[in-house]
Amino acid sequence: MNNFEFQNPTKIIFGKGTIAKLKDNLFKGEKIMMTYGGGSIKKNGVYDQVKKALEGFDVIEFGGIEPNPDFDTLMKAVKICREQGVGFLLAVGGGSVIDGTKFIAAAVEYKGDEWEILTKKTTAEECLPLASVLTMPATGSEMNSNAVISRRATKEKFDFGSPKVYPVFSILDPEVVYSIPKHQKANGLADSFIHVIEQYLTDDINTPVQDRWAEGVMKTIIETAPKVLVDKPDYDACANYMWAATCALNFFISPGVNQDWSTHMIGHELTALCGLDHGVTLAIVLPGTMRVMRKEKKAKILMYAKNVFGITQGSDEEIIDKAIEATEKFFQSLGIKTRLSDYNAGQEVIDEIYNRFEKRGTVLGEHGIVTHEKVRQILQDRL
Amino acid sequence: MNNFEFQNPTKIIFGKGTIAKLKDNLFKGEKIMMTYGGGSIKKNGVYDQVKKALEGFDVIEFGGIEPNPDFDTLMKAVKICREQGVGFLLAVGGGSVIDGTKFIAAAVEYKGDEWEILTKKTTAEECLPLASVLTMPATGSEMNSNAVISRRATKEKFDFGSPKVYPVFSILDPEVVYSIPKHQKANGLADSFIHVIEQYLTDDINTPVQDRWAEGVMKTIIETAPKVLVDKPDYDACANYMWAATCALNFFISPGVNQDWSTHMIGHELTALCGLDHGVTLAIVLPGTMRVMRKEKKAKILMYAKNVFGITQGSDEEIIDKAIEATEKFFQSLGIKTRLSDYNAGQEVIDEIYNRFEKRGTVLGEHGIVTHEKVRQILQDRL
Repeated sequence: MNNFEFQNPTKIIFGKGTIAKLKDNLFKGEKIMMTYGGGSIKKNGVYDQVKKALEGFDVIEFGGIEPNPDFDTLMKAVKICREQGVGFLLAVGGGSVIDGTKFIAAAVEYKGDEWEILTKKTTAEECLPLASVLTMPATGSEMNSNAVISRRATKEKFDFGSPKVYPVFSILDPEVVYSIPKHQKANGLADSFIHVIEQYLTDDINTPVQDRWAEGVMKTIIETAPKVLVDKPDYDACANYMWAATCALNFFISPGVNQDWSTHMIGHELTALCGLDHGVTLAIVLPGTMRVMRKEKKAKILMYAKNVFGITQGSDEEIIDKAIEATEKFFQSLGIKTRLSDYNAGQEVIDEIYNRFEKRGTVLGEHGIVTHEKVRQILQDRL
Repeated sequence: MNNFEFQNPTKIIFGKGTIAKLKDNLFKGEKIMMTYGGGSIKKNGVYDQVKKALEGFDVIEFGGIEPNPDFDTLMKAVKICREQGVGFLLAVGGGSVIDGTKFIAAAVEYKGDEWEILTKKTTAEECLPLASVLTMPATGSEMNSNAVISRRATKEKFDFGSPKVYPVFSILDPEVVYSIPKHQKANGLADSFIHVIEQYLTDDINTPVQDRWAEGVMKTIIETAPKVLVDKPDYDACANYMWAATCALNFFISPGVNQDWSTHMIGHELTALCGLDHGVTLAIVLPGTMRVMRKEKKAKILMYAKNVFGITQGSDEEIIDKAIEATEKFFQSLGIKTRLSDYNAGQEVIDEIYNRFEKRGTVLGEHGIVTHEKVRQILQDRL
């Protein structure tokens, strides 16, 4: 096991009817900016529940944060925060809204060009405190310190992280899952599954607690997926999906292990260049990452095959092939197509991603083993 | 899944050579009381490492906190804290030292009879901040908000818990395990295993992430135990044991599940009345709890049999018998004797425990199902 430091201060308030608890966890006397997305919360009842809980608080609203939240949109919110002296941010939405709100928190007091927060991975010395009401289990943003921000003007997508942007609290009411469209649930299931993969499918450095926990989250996602994807999922299925998605990226499974994240970095480029949904990009890329990096990840792929899918028959190479196949079939079972050609993306996209990584000098994968040449091979595998 | 609230703010600093990081995590300018036990830290090098890291800080020492820390001992430390204006507590030791230090933290500003902290489960409005350097993996006290305190004068042992006594940070250097005597390692392994059991072996309310995580910690403890119990364990074995023991009781496995803790409550009485080591008392009691409560815990015992021990052959009742047997054999493999008669404890102890619970009106087990009559049956089973 590697040496590590771990601290996750976010308070989770989980369960039926918990949105009403907002009022017990916020302080009166400071101006709150409530952020949200395209307005789905106005249709599914979440907006009304939040507004009711916020009666008597000083609240302004900032709606319209788009999927893959855009730098220019968020800078409008930053300007309002500065002008109106906002002291607390309340994100009501999924990963995009929460990520965008983390950026706002990091930018309001930032001296300099706010784009540096993404390119230099820095923040203001004092970030605004933020909290969230989660409406879409997927990214884990409700209980971590990371965010991914896009800039449509330049077709770029970057992440940043800081202990200063952990939500103070997050409210997770699984009943919000009832009204999520099927393709969004599918994306969320794929996204959270691959969050676990990025922290697990690396090299085996003898970390059994972390490995069993990662496998436990993945098995839960696989078993829960068909129950969540039906039109009227039951409460337990929604609750288990929601908690699994949070545990997939709250860093509980990753202390002391090596991490990969190359599938995410490649996926971000596919979103930036082709506008594909985040979860879809990951489902496209991962089978390629596994196939191209099969030697380096051999021990862990074998562990994964056995402990997640129960695959034990055959030679090591056959088991690895079966594990890759089972992984891709799982994504397809969610209704996600897993080839670049399914989305009319081809060689020119691969070349552009290769060139971008070359130009930026991006280092990918555990120990930097996913070279730019490997990225090209991974994407060629996914044509 | 039940509704839940979860927050664990403790920072963990884990790995080789991390005791030196003390100086980066403490503030100068306030008086620190360093607490410790019987002096083993002066033999194994931990004391010297801590003192070196604390050079330049204003530190007073309070040694002599005994196993099953005593109220009267701790009150001496409370008096010194009040007299000298101590502003921060640094526990250097195992669960007893950390638990005792949590009591000191809760008592210094307490107005009234400090024994009420145990009997009324209360604390001062402001508790002193505390941190720990862990020297003995077992209780999980380094990353939770609970403590168990004894009072030899009255042969009593009670617990209390408060979010105010989470350690600010805890340093976990697995190298401290090298010098722990074998019987203490055995106790620690049994203790941490049964911490998981108390949060897992209840009723099945469809919590797969929590269940897989609990099983993962137990499997790690079982697999790591023989590697830890040798005279010269390797670093990885020590590290995995240490992290498993912390994860057994940092509440990561228990959000939204029902919990038991009857084995602990009965065990505390055995320690208070007979002076038995905590881990030993749990290993004695647990097989009885499983046998007497086998109907109520059936679904979970079957899950445990399959997922922890791989027992799947036979009728449900046979599988349950095998699971109880495997559990008791695991404790015996640690070198722990698992019968009351092995320790010259007999009927009079059982009667006294029954009478105490009757008198106090203690409610035990998930949903209060472990009645006082069941406690008697559990102990009779362990004669």
